[in-house]
Amino acid sequence: MKNIRTAVIGIGNMGTAHATCLYEGRIIGMELSAVCDISPVRREECSRRFPGVPQFENWREMIASGTLDAVIVAVPHPMHAEIATAVLEAGLHVLTEKPMDVSVSKGRKLIEASKKSDRVFAIMFNQRTNPLFRRAREIVKSGQLGELKRSVWIITNWYRTQHYYDSGDWRATWSGEGGGVLLNQAPHNLDLWQWICGMPVEVTAFCDVAKYHNIEVEDDATIFVRYENGATGTFITTTGEYPGTNRLEIAGTLGKIVLENGVLKWWKLEQPEDVVRFELKKNSGPIPMQVEEITTDEKETAHAGILQNFANAIQHGEALISPGPDGICELTISNAAYLSQWKGNVAIPVPFDEAEFDRELAKRAENSNYHIKDGVHNPDGKYSERWQVNW
Amino acid sequence: MKNIRTAVIGIGNMGTAHATCLYEGRIIGMELSAVCDISPVRREECSRRFPGVPQFENWREMIASGTLDAVIVAVPHPMHAEIATAVLEAGLHVLTEKPMDVSVSKGRKLIEASKKSDRVFAIMFNQRTNPLFRRAREIVKSGQLGELKRSVWIITNWYRTQHYYDSGDWRATWSGEGGGVLLNQAPHNLDLWQWICGMPVEVTAFCDVAKYHNIEVEDDATIFVRYENGATGTFITTTGEYPGTNRLEIAGTLGKIVLENGVLKWWKLEQPEDVVRFELKKNSGPIPMQVEEITTDEKETAHAGILQNFANAIQHGEALISPGPDGICELTISNAAYLSQWKGNVAIPVPFDEAEFDRELAKRAENSNYHIKDGVHNPDGKYSERWQVNW
Repeated sequence: MKNIRTAVIGIGNMGTAHATCLYEGRIIGMELSAVCDISPVRREECSRRFPGVPQFENWREMIASGTLDAVIVAVPHPMHAEIATAVLEAGLHVLTEKPMDVSVSKGRKLIEASKKSDRVFAIMFNQRTNPLFRRAREIVKSGQLGELKRSVWIITNWYRTQHYYDSGDWRATWSGEGGGVLLNQAPHNLDLWQWICGMPVEVTAFCDVAKYHNIEVEDDATIFVRYENGATGTFITTTGEYPGTNRLEIAGTLGKIVLENGVLKWWKLEQPEDVVRFELKKNSGPIPMQVEEITTDEKETAHAGILQNFANAIQHGEALISPGPDGICELTISNAAYLSQWKGNVAIPVPFDEAEFDRELAKRAENSNYHIKDGVHNPDGKYSERWQVNW
Repeated sequence: MKNIRTAVIGIGNMGTAHATCLYEGRIIGMELSAVCDISPVRREECSRRFPGVPQFENWREMIASGTLDAVIVAVPHPMHAEIATAVLEAGLHVLTEKPMDVSVSKGRKLIEASKKSDRVFAIMFNQRTNPLFRRAREIVKSGQLGELKRSVWIITNWYRTQHYYDSGDWRATWSGEGGGVLLNQAPHNLDLWQWICGMPVEVTAFCDVAKYHNIEVEDDATIFVRYENGATGTFITTTGEYPGTNRLEIAGTLGKIVLENGVLKWWKLEQPEDVVRFELKKNSGPIPMQVEEITTDEKETAHAGILQNFANAIQHGEALISPGPDGICELTISNAAYLSQWKGNVAIPVPFDEAEFDRELAKRAENSNYHIKDGVHNPDGKYSERWQVNW
C-alpha cells in the first residue's frame, strides 16, 4: 500500500512537531509530502529541517496541487474550519488541531462539509489516548458508576509564563486566537470531560481576563454546568497557578472515581446509594464498598498515536479515536462559557444562540491588538511533554 | 474556684451529648446544673439520664432562676439568637450551637447584645480544634502562601439518609431549621473556609432543593465566591453522595496547600510565582519548590475541647477558639448563597440586603411543612464521630 502523502499547513510549534514526526518516518503509512506557511522565515526553517519537501505559501494552491492525499491543519484557531472544509471539498483527508475553530457556527459548517465527504476527518485530541482517561470513560459509559451525580475537574496545571504569551503574536488575542485558556489549553480537558460524562445542558461561567498575564483574553475560568438528569459539574482552569492540580472526580449512584497523580481510584458500592438512602435505618452510612486503585504501565501514545490512528483510518478503516465532528462538543462548552461571562455570568442553555455568540466575539476581535507579523519563533520540532496529560 | 453552673437548653441529639459530657464531669470547672426542653418525653429521658439535675420546661424561667452561671443553647437553629441574647442579658455566659441562627439580621442582634455584655459568648465550631485546619490557617494567615489566588473545597462527605431527615420533625424544613446542608452540616466547613481564607465579597450559588431526599430544603449546593483581591473560591457540598470527598485546596503566589485524607500537603515555591511569571524565559515552569506532607498525632479535641475552652475563658480569661461573633461570617456566606439561588443564581455582594433575605426566608417558612410535635428521638448521648472532621 502506498504511503499517504501528507502536508502540514501552519509550521508553528505544533505544525513543526507534526511535520518532524512525519518527516522522521514515525507514522507507518504516512509521509511528509508538503509544508505550507505564509511566513518566509518559517519556510526558510522548513528548508533546513525538511530538505526536499515541497513548500507552499498559499494553502489553496497546495491542496489543489494534486500531490496530496491528506492534510494536517495547524494554523491559528480561527482558520481551522475554513481550511479543513476546503481540504475535504478538495477530496483530501484532514486532521485539524484542536479546537475545531473558535465558534460553534464555524465548526458546524465544517461538520456539514464532512457529511458530504467520504474522506477521513479527525481532530487532535491527543489526551484521549491516555489509558486512565480511557478507563474512566469505560467505567462511566458502561454504567458501572450508576447514574451521574456530579463531576468536578480542577485542571489548573496549565501554567504559562508571560514569555509564552509573547512567543506568538496571535496568542491570547480575540482575533488571532479567539480566546484564552478555555480555547487553547483546556480544550483537551473540556473534550475529555464531555467524552466521559456527556454533554451538559446548561453552562454558567466566571472568566477572568488578563488576571495573571498581559493578554487580552481570559487566563482563569470556573465553569458550572448542569446535565440533563440534574447532575452538576464544576470545571476550574487557569494558566496562572503553580504548581497546579489535575484532579477529576466523578460521583454516581454506584460510587465514585477520582483521577489524580496518575492513579484512577474507584470506590464501588455494593448496593446502589439511591436505594440505601431510603432503606437504611441509620443516619448516615457506611455503605459497604470495594476500593480499587488503577495504575497502568501502558503509555499515552499522544500526538503520534492520533496521527497513526488517522493513517490507519485512511488505509484500513480503523475507527477514529478522535473523530473530527466530536470537536464541536468541547467548543460548545467553551463558547457557552464565554457567552455566559459576556452576558453577566448568566446560565446559557445548550444549544445556545450561535449568532449572538458570533456577534459578541466579532466585537472583541474588532478591538483586538493582534496584527499578523512574524513573531519570535524557535520550535524544537518535538512534541512537548506539556501537551500530554500532566499530573 | 467554684464550678460553673451550666444548663443545656434543647435536649435533642446535640443537647443530650453536651449534657452527658457535663454530667459525666468531663469538663474541668463546669457542671450540669439544669436541663430545659419543651417536650415532656425528653424531660422524662433527662430524669433517667441525669437524675437529680433540675429540669425546666420554660427557658425564660430557667435563666431567671438565679441558679446558673452559663447556658448552652442546643435548640433548633431559628431560636439560637433570641435565646442566646436573653441569656447574655440575664448576665449569664452563653455558648450556642452552630449556626448562630438562620439569618444574619438575627445574628447581628445577638452580637449587639454581646457587645453590651461582659459575659463570655462562644459558638460550637468544634472543627476549629482540628490540628490540620489550625495549621492550614497558620500557613495562610502568616503569609507563607503569598497572596491568595484560589480556594476549592469539595466537602461532599456529609452523607445523610432519609431516616436521618425523618428523625426530627424540625429537620430540613424552612420554618423548623431554616435551611438544608448549608445551614446544618456545612456551617462547620463554611466557617473553617472563611477562618482560613477570609471572607468573600461576592457569592453566587446553585442550590438544589430535595435533590436526593424528601425534604423541603437544599441537599446539594455549589458556591462560587470572589475575594477582595479578585481571587476566586468554589465550595461544593451535599448530603447525597457516598462515599463523599473532603478536600480543601488553597493556591497562592507562593505555592499551594491541599488537605485531604488527614494529610496537609504543602508545596512551597522558592521564588514568588508572580515574579517568575514575568522573568522566566521559558513557556512554563518548573519553579523550584519544596514539598512537605504534614500529619499529626495530635487529636481534634472537638466538642469537649470547645466546652473546655468555654469554661477556661469564663474562669481564667483564656482566649476563645470560637468566639460567638465569628458565627456571623459563615452565616453571611450561606444567607448570601440562598439569596443568590432565590434571585436566579445572581452574584450577591457581601454585605447583602438583609431585609430582602428575611422577607424571602419568611415566604418559604410560611409554606413550610414543619409543625412542632414530638418526633422519634433516641439519642445515645455521645458525640457522634460524624460531627468531627471526617476524611
